[in-house]
Amino acid sequence: MSIDPHKHIAGETKPERGFPVSEFESRLARAQAAMAEVGVDGLFLTTEPEIRYFTGFLSRFWLSPARPWFLLVPFTGKPVAVVPSIGRECFDATWLDDVRSWESPKPDDEGVSLLASTIGEVLGHSARIGVPQGPETHLRMPIGDFFRLRDMLPGCEFVDATGVITSLRMIKSAAEIEKIAHACSMVSDVFQAFPDQLRLGMSEIEIFRRFKIACLERGIDDVDYLVGGAGPGGYMDIISPPSPRGVGAGDILMLDTGCVFDGYFCDFDRNFAFGSVPDAAGKAYAVLLDAAQAGLEATRSGATCADIYHAMQRVLIKEFPGGSGVGRMGHGLGMQLTEWPSIMATDETVVQPGMVLTLEPSVDLGGGRMMVHEENLVLTEDGPVLLTRPAPKSLPLIIA
Amino acid sequence: MSIDPHKHIAGETKPERGFPVSEFESRLARAQAAMAEVGVDGLFLTTEPEIRYFTGFLSRFWLSPARPWFLLVPFTGKPVAVVPSIGRECFDATWLDDVRSWESPKPDDEGVSLLASTIGEVLGHSARIGVPQGPETHLRMPIGDFFRLRDMLPGCEFVDATGVITSLRMIKSAAEIEKIAHACSMVSDVFQAFPDQLRLGMSEIEIFRRFKIACLERGIDDVDYLVGGAGPGGYMDIISPPSPRGVGAGDILMLDTGCVFDGYFCDFDRNFAFGSVPDAAGKAYAVLLDAAQAGLEATRSGATCADIYHAMQRVLIKEFPGGSGVGRMGHGLGMQLTEWPSIMATDETVVQPGMVLTLEPSVDLGGGRMMVHEENLVLTEDGPVLLTRPAPKSLPLIIA
Repeated sequence: MSIDPHKHIAGETKPERGFPVSEFESRLARAQAAMAEVGVDGLFLTTEPEIRYFTGFLSRFWLSPARPWFLLVPFTGKPVAVVPSIGRECFDATWLDDVRSWESPKPDDEGVSLLASTIGEVLGHSARIGVPQGPETHLRMPIGDFFRLRDMLPGCEFVDATGVITSLRMIKSAAEIEKIAHACSMVSDVFQAFPDQLRLGMSEIEIFRRFKIACLERGIDDVDYLVGGAGPGGYMDIISPPSPRGVGAGDILMLDTGCVFDGYFCDFDRNFAFGSVPDAAGKAYAVLLDAAQAGLEATRSGATCADIYHAMQRVLIKEFPGGSGVGRMGHGLGMQLTEWPSIMATDETVVQPGMVLTLEPSVDLGGGRMMVHEENLVLTEDGPVLLTRPAPKSLPLIIA
Repeated sequence: MSIDPHKHIAGETKPERGFPVSEFESRLARAQAAMAEVGVDGLFLTTEPEIRYFTGFLSRFWLSPARPWFLLVPFTGKPVAVVPSIGRECFDATWLDDVRSWESPKPDDEGVSLLASTIGEVLGHSARIGVPQGPETHLRMPIGDFFRLRDMLPGCEFVDATGVITSLRMIKSAAEIEKIAHACSMVSDVFQAFPDQLRLGMSEIEIFRRFKIACLERGIDDVDYLVGGAGPGGYMDIISPPSPRGVGAGDILMLDTGCVFDGYFCDFDRNFAFGSVPDAAGKAYAVLLDAAQAGLEATRSGATCADIYHAMQRVLIKEFPGGSGVGRMGHGLGMQLTEWPSIMATDETVVQPGMVLTLEPSVDLGGGRMMVHEENLVLTEDGPVLLTRPAPKSLPLIIA
């Protein structure tokens, strides 16, 4: 079956900000069911997306590393927050009933004793406590304080709970998908109109600045991620900040952006040719679009991430046998720019309705140059649907 | 001695991007001297600012949690990077000689075995390895992988090295100060002109959007941090995202921003009165300016952070005896929005030339409302100098 690449979720209607309480109740119920399966008495969470997922707390203040934030998700009952005093007001406004805080900063006891006593009270002194410890996770607190916490709770056992978190967060709710779709829609508009703003010789720095402004003007909350590059016929790397170099005739420019609406990301890129389209670049572009289309069609309930990877790789390898060094060809997307799973040969995750994924095939053009193309999709009960407006069939050309 | 608040570092000249190699050589030499003092054979670093500090690697790609990045700073010799394949190109372009990479993502061995063997080779199998474990630090890798690393290096000891990092990073070089000063200068321009863009009834969301665009147009690279609030006579919290509520007559609006130029932050706020200046707000504003001025004058070599705090608190307490819940009245500033030390009663850090600090007095206006004012300064050999253009003497008034 072939999928119409022009069928995509419009995302044009601006979704309500925030979520109804029922969304958090549903997340909690799913979490508690997953906790039952792995036999933990509660989750101990410290990072921005983990805590926002269960509370709705959305703040740029996470950028300051001075204060840790803690959330306990017990096996029964609602989550309990242990947060620095500066966040008291915000957490009292969430759906939680039990919010505890300490006067922070307090480096000699940065919430640790309050946290330990709260864990003892809420989860018990011999609890099996799930902490995300696996791929793509980290602990957002001083590790010295984590060791201190363990010492204060000698009867408790801290076990890995990465699977509990991934099983929840990989499957997006309708309200989450709406927010991602809206971000994708707005940035699709920006990319579509952007050639009008590009001129031969414009510096990468200036191009990046104009793109960020265009996204904000279109309604994006924050342009948290914008990387890319430009070079003759292709670019050298895809994670660098912009250079002062002017983009000139024969160059291919790529912009890859993670823009946020109400705490949810899009993550896709577009390529532009300056002056003319070098033959090799035109061919690479066509192959990348074909590969993404093959990836889209392979994204079916029951398929694995490896299946999707191979569907793309089969298209690429006919023309571009070398690897690009990116290491994967897509990933999950949502509250974070990149989430589990990975679209790669070794990821056997079975895709399911509700998953939002990026498809990101890349090719090595030789001489250290590469080209990357990226789209975003959601897998629905009726099959895969693009969230991004499909890229133009041929490279947009900047001629003046 | 009184300090002219209108004397500030202009920061109008755009600094060069990046740093000369001599900057990294100097950082390394200072690090190795500090390591000698605490007796460690090397540092093991995992976070964006730690790694950027020693290598210059600047990328938004850190936003993706999929891949860890590792840096070893040995007691002698240059740092050694162990990075995912996608970063190979960028790290080869730094001043480092020894860059090792693994094909990533590879969740079953996400660089850990390569890291362990590199530590064994570079630092030895019975090394004492410094890892930042204290206040305001975290370990940016799955904690399960850190435990695995320890098991693979049974002869090594991982000890806290927070002090090594803070002693270095708290004292900024001239080149670092130039970048912060430039960010402060550009955002001072934006704040000064911003009343022209404000209208009675404009929503917070719209105000935030316009402010971000104005910063980008002025030359800021990224508006990573913008929080604030508005309310009758004051605001309820200072870490929330903007609301759709219109800001009307009698409201006080505060915008607090951390804008970035070449990887260095400013962090300051400005207040605006809508329609009229309520008496209490006008008085609070005057007191906050006086407190910041007292803080500035107290920032002298040899003074402690506690001294600076008390200098501000003495001014505030005469009129506003209650605390605001913010927990401190300023902090270090540089590669991160907030850094050590904290301007608070319990922080006995002695301030030294080269420190860049924020002064951030706040008052409780009752009924849950507050007001905050913030400036940025550098302590030079000749005393404290503002990096921000001083706030206007009275609250800017939006009348239409």
